[in-house]
This record gives sequence, C-alpha cells and structure tokens, in this order.
Amino acid sequence: MKLLARFRPLERRLVPLEQARGRILYENIRSPEDLPPFSRSTMDGFAVRAKDTFGCSESEPALLQIVGEIPMGSAGQDIKIEPGQAAKIWTGGALPAGADSVVMVEFTHLVDQETIEVFRPVAPGENVILQGEDFREGEIVFNKGHELRSQDLGVLAGLGITEAPLFRRPRVAIISTGDELVPPDKKPGPGQIRDINSTTLAAQVAEAGGVPIGLGIIKDDPETMLEACEAALEDGADILLLSGGSSVGRRDFTLTVFKAVAGTEILAHGVSIRPGKPTILAKRANQALFGLPGHVASAMVVFYLFVRPLIRFMAGKELSIGLPEITAECSQEIPSVSGREDFVRVRLQKRPDRQYPEAFPVWGRSGLLRPLVKADGLLIVPRDSEGLEKGDKARVLLFSPELALSG
Amino acid sequence: MKLLARFRPLERRLVPLEQARGRILYENIRSPEDLPPFSRSTMDGFAVRAKDTFGCSESEPALLQIVGEIPMGSAGQDIKIEPGQAAKIWTGGALPAGADSVVMVEFTHLVDQETIEVFRPVAPGENVILQGEDFREGEIVFNKGHELRSQDLGVLAGLGITEAPLFRRPRVAIISTGDELVPPDKKPGPGQIRDINSTTLAAQVAEAGGVPIGLGIIKDDPETMLEACEAALEDGADILLLSGGSSVGRRDFTLTVFKAVAGTEILAHGVSIRPGKPTILAKRANQALFGLPGHVASAMVVFYLFVRPLIRFMAGKELSIGLPEITAECSQEIPSVSGREDFVRVRLQKRPDRQYPEAFPVWGRSGLLRPLVKADGLLIVPRDSEGLEKGDKARVLLFSPELALSG
Repeated sequence: MKLLARFRPLERRLVPLEQARGRILYENIRSPEDLPPFSRSTMDGFAVRAKDTFGCSESEPALLQIVGEIPMGSAGQDIKIEPGQAAKIWTGGALPAGADSVVMVEFTHLVDQETIEVFRPVAPGENVILQGEDFREGEIVFNKGHELRSQDLGVLAGLGITEAPLFRRPRVAIISTGDELVPPDKKPGPGQIRDINSTTLAAQVAEAGGVPIGLGIIKDDPETMLEACEAALEDGADILLLSGGSSVGRRDFTLTVFKAVAGTEILAHGVSIRPGKPTILAKRANQALFGLPGHVASAMVVFYLFVRPLIRFMAGKELSIGLPEITAECSQEIPSVSGREDFVRVRLQKRPDRQYPEAFPVWGRSGLLRPLVKADGLLIVPRDSEGLEKGDKARVLLFSPELALSG
Repeated sequence: MKLLARFRPLERRLVPLEQARGRILYENIRSPEDLPPFSRSTMDGFAVRAKDTFGCSESEPALLQIVGEIPMGSAGQDIKIEPGQAAKIWTGGALPAGADSVVMVEFTHLVDQETIEVFRPVAPGENVILQGEDFREGEIVFNKGHELRSQDLGVLAGLGITEAPLFRRPRVAIISTGDELVPPDKKPGPGQIRDINSTTLAAQVAEAGGVPIGLGIIKDDPETMLEACEAALEDGADILLLSGGSSVGRRDFTLTVFKAVAGTEILAHGVSIRPGKPTILAKRANQALFGLPGHVASAMVVFYLFVRPLIRFMAGKELSIGLPEITAECSQEIPSVSGREDFVRVRLQKRPDRQYPEAFPVWGRSGLLRPLVKADGLLIVPRDSEGLEKGDKARVLLFSPELALSG
C-alpha cells in the first residue's frame, strides 16, 4: 500500500451530472449565487407582516385585507404588502415585498373575497426560507475530495452547475497472456481453455471506478508481450494489468518485459501474501504496470488488495481497499505461517443468537472456480499469526456490499 | 411494502456480460460442458504415473524417461505415458494419456536430456484438476435469482456463456411539475427556481438498478400532467415518478390525474411516515405510478422507502430497501408521535471507545437542501415510539455503502 502512494491522482475533468455519481470532486465547489435566489414560502397560505398577527387568537382573530395572489413562478415583488394586508401564496412561491412571514391556510378563515381572519400569530420568518438561507453566494458547498451522492448532484443542479469538476477515472488496460487461452465466445480446441481473467478483471475495474479497456489475449512470448504493453501505455492506459503466467517460466517473462519497457522502475517483485505471492508492480511516470497471477482466484485477491486501491486513489479517493469489512468467527482451525498474510475464501452464515456470523473456509485447489462462486468474502489471517483456532474472531472483506446490510 | 408485492418482476433479457454486473439471473444456469474440459496440471513439472514414484526419496530417487513436453494449448493426449516414463508439463497444460499426476519441478533433478530423478512420491490426482472437477456438464452453476458478481461473470465466460439471461431493468420515467421550475442549465427568472428533483431522482434510480428516463418539467395543470403521464406509460415506462405538488392544491392534481389515467387503481394515498406523508401510489397492469412530494428531502425518503424497493423487486431482487443499515446512539432527544414512522436525517460520528457511532440530527426546515448535504443517513424512529432519548439505540439507513465499512 505504501508503494501505491508513489502514484498521483489523475487530472481534472468536467463531467455532466448524469455521469458524476460516486465520483470525486477535484476542487471546492462554491455557490455561484444565493440559494434560494429569493425568499420562498414553505406552506400554502397568506403572506403577511408578522406584526399584524401578534396577539390574535381563535376568539380574537386578526382581520387582513387580501391584495392579490402570487402566481407560482412570478416575482412576488410585483405586489407590496402594507400594514393590515395579506396576499395568497403557495408552497414555493416568492414572498411579496413588505411581507416577512406566511400564515398557514389552516389558520385562516375567508370572510369574503377580500378579507381573511387569522387565528394564530406567526413570528417574522415563519414558514419562509430566506434568500440565501441554504447557500450564500461564494460559500463553499462541497469540499475538494467529496464523493458525490445522488442528493449532492441535486444540489449542484439547483446551483446551475451542470458539469462537475472531477478527478479523471483511470483507464485500465487488461491483457491476458497464455498460448492455451481462447476468448469466451470461441469453442476451445483440445488443450485450450477459455480466458476468464479478462472478464473478471474488467468487471472488477468497473466496480472500483475505473474504465476497463479489454485488449484480449496475446501469445506467451516476451516480444509479443513487450509490444502489447508498450502499445497500451502509449495509448494512454493509466494502469496496465498483465495476467497469466501461473508457471514459473512465464512469470519470469513478465518481469523481463516490464524491465524492458522504456522508463519503468520495478517497485515490487513478489509480495508476502497468499494467494498472490508472484505479483509484480512497475512504475513508468504515473503509469502502473501490474503482473497478476494467472489463476483467477489469485488474480482477484491481488486486484482487491493492490489494483483496486490504486484505481480509487487515482480517481481521487483515499488510498484504501474500499470493500465492506465485517468481523466473523472461524468455524474451524485455519492454519497459516507467520510472516505472511493469508486471504482465505469463506462463506458466511448468520446466527440469530450470536453477534458475529460464522465463517466457513471454502477450500479448493488453486485453479478451481467453484470456491470463488461459493465464497462471500476473504477472511484475513494476519501476518503475525501462525493460524486461527475455531471460534477466533477475524476480519472478513466482503465481495458484495449487500452482505453487510444486516451483518 | 406489502402493496409493492402486487407488482411482478420484469421479463427475461439476454445481456452481454459487460453489462451484467449486479444484475439478477432470470433462470438457473447449467454448465453446458465439463469445466475444465480436460485434466490440467496445476504446477510446472512432469506428468507421471503416480505408481512409478511410490517409495522414492532423496536417497532413493525414482528414475523416469522423458518422452516429450506438452506445449501449452495442445492436447496432451498426443503423448502417451507408459510405465517408467514422464513428460514435461506447465501449469495449465493438458495431462497426457496414461499420466494421473504431476511431480513439481522442485522435486526432480535432470540427469540428462532424457532422464529425470524424482525425490518425492505423488498420489494419483496430485497437482491435477480433473476434467469436470469444477463443473460437470448439466450441473447447476448459479441459481435463478443470484446476483452476478465480478467473479461470477468470469465463471460464465469460462463456460462460454457470453450473454446472461437476466431480469429486465425497470425503465423509470421522471417528470417534475411546477410552474416555478426551470431546468438546471437555465438561469431562473424572478420567482423561478431550478429543478432539483429530476437530477436527484435520476441518480437514485440508476443507483437502485433502474434506467432513468428524464422527461423534464411540465406545467402544473391537470390536462398537461395527464397527457405527460399517459405518454410515458405508452412509451413503456415501468415506473412513473411525478414529483412536485408540495402545495395541498397541487397534490390534489396528482391524485386527480392518476385516477384519470385509463386502467389505474389507486393503491395508496398518504402514508404514515414523516417526511413523505402525501405520497400517492397507483397501479396500471404492472406499471407503477408514484406521486412524490415536491420537497427534495421528502421525495428522497419516499424514494428510498418505496420506489427503490420496487425498482429492485422488478429487476429480480428481494423486496427490500437494500441500503446498508447500522445501529447508532442518539446524541440528543428526538421527539416523535406514536403511530407514525419518522425518518430523521443524521450525521454520524464514530467514537473510538464505543461500539456504536453517535447520530446527530441535522435539523432544518422542509425545503432546505443543506441538511441533505450534511447528512450521512436516515435515523428511524419506530412507529410505536413517542420519541427517542439521548443515548437510545436506533437503526440508521446509510446513504452511501462506504460508510458501513468500519461501522
């Protein structure tokens, strides 16, 4: 994670509000004007001078003269309320000149077409939102780094800001290597198998907030790989994911290739986690090159731990995995080795009588897909632990936020 | 919520995998073939007959004849392993005929080009994934109703299923009414204000998994409204959101209009929650018509409680709000009225020494936007409660799943 901080968030982009949800503000947003731009009624009723209602009651109503009605969408200032006068107003209507408050229609009685009785006094400002009460011109509405939610987009729309200044989303090029791979829509020949990583990684990239660019399958030789990597970087990929190379020989290709790309620096070659040990990370200016394990289960773990935080960081978020995390109890012993962090696929089961759900490891050989399908998340065996006992509490990263709902 | 169960999930659509994440399977998915389609090595090493290695050790290695190498992507069956023989194989390579296991390269020593020594015995099946070990042809891989995650899309790709049979996503037409409203990109004239609901609701629809169809702002009279509603329903909207009408008079328009649409039945007119009381729900075949409050804060609450569950339900999910929910402690007294469920906007503050975060109500008049910007979620005051005391525990619906991360 510390290595990832050597990359920088991306540049500024103006993005239409429809595409801005979940993305991060590049700069402070100041209100370009007062909101609301005029004082508005929050009720149906009569705009009045509060003073005229002071002391009135059911038995001694105040008598006011109706001098007009404020049509919706018209400037209330066309009408002026003098002492002893009132004007009909609707929710959202502009307060007329002279008025300082609104009496709810429920507390009035129409005597004739030109006169009302008011039964209940109002205070100045009652049932009114004053001009600029929400936001004053020039005031900061959102800070740089804020993640835009649905309601925030509404506020921007209300201020007339229809394009938000955001961090650009990283473009993530995805390349699978392997002479045995065919695309998912092809029938594999003898000894061939369909490429799974391209689909999984593209979905994970989109989920993390990146723009996946699928570059397909390439041959498993260093020249082809070098050419493909250089082309992807020239085309403006911010992050390059090269997956494949489960075998020791092919892993070495990836390192050779990353070293051969002009201007790269190798930041990591191997990480002390399982699965995912053979991960490679290189840097070329602000572009990141990842060599991911070929096994989809390992590639997924490495994605969550390293690629996802970087995508989020480049898009302006904090450097974190950003997956929901819960506490669970181990259903059985989980062996590990001190000095290495283990990520064990687990299925979770809630127990009505217990605070924490139970985590059942979904064992399975490396290379099998079924454990991925059955698992709800990754249980973390800490680096300094030699394993967990049945009943031990552990942190679990959830694959799907919905699982956290009643966690 | 019970009324929403009178609607039905939508029909089947074949959707390319790139667009299928987070969506729901319309039917069971069976494996169209064995996966893997052939027995594969999970290691770099030598394919052998396990029996030939039984009893071998560092001091008494087994001597085997190398009869070839399995190139990646070729059928291993071109080579046949006879007793006493071995073939070089890479991770993912197809097991040759006759072989039943793979010895890792680390446990072999090359004597000459045609001979290896094996130091450690292997069991039959060791370091091999057998044909169909992941999924057998015809076996159910995912059940109807399963929500597709990134890894599930990879599994479908691996099975050659590039289009997933999913529930169609509901089309949600959004209409704002109000003579005082102008679109966000227009400068409001005197007494006018920019439409906020269209932007907020469109973002909420997309977030819930629906397809927002923005139909803009219409005049606040029953004929125009009726025409717009009928057009939207004819154009195939599954859900229609008509917002506006905060005033009592205009609310009555919405009810009149919904009643006038041919074939509608009014399911609800007013709900016992605050804010959101004046909500109207009508049904026309499997189409839903919602009359939402004009105030954006009220419209948001009604959206979360009723519209969002229906969008999710129509898209094949369970009937639920589907927002992360946590427990928090009230920072102060929160008054309420028995017989009505209250949704109070709150800001959450974590406390390092306490299990639950503290919830601070973000008070503000109806119609103000600022409380929406400041709030993290909605605290629920239950229907049978007359209010909460400082320190009472309460459920909080979170606007953003990321807040649940360390909740």
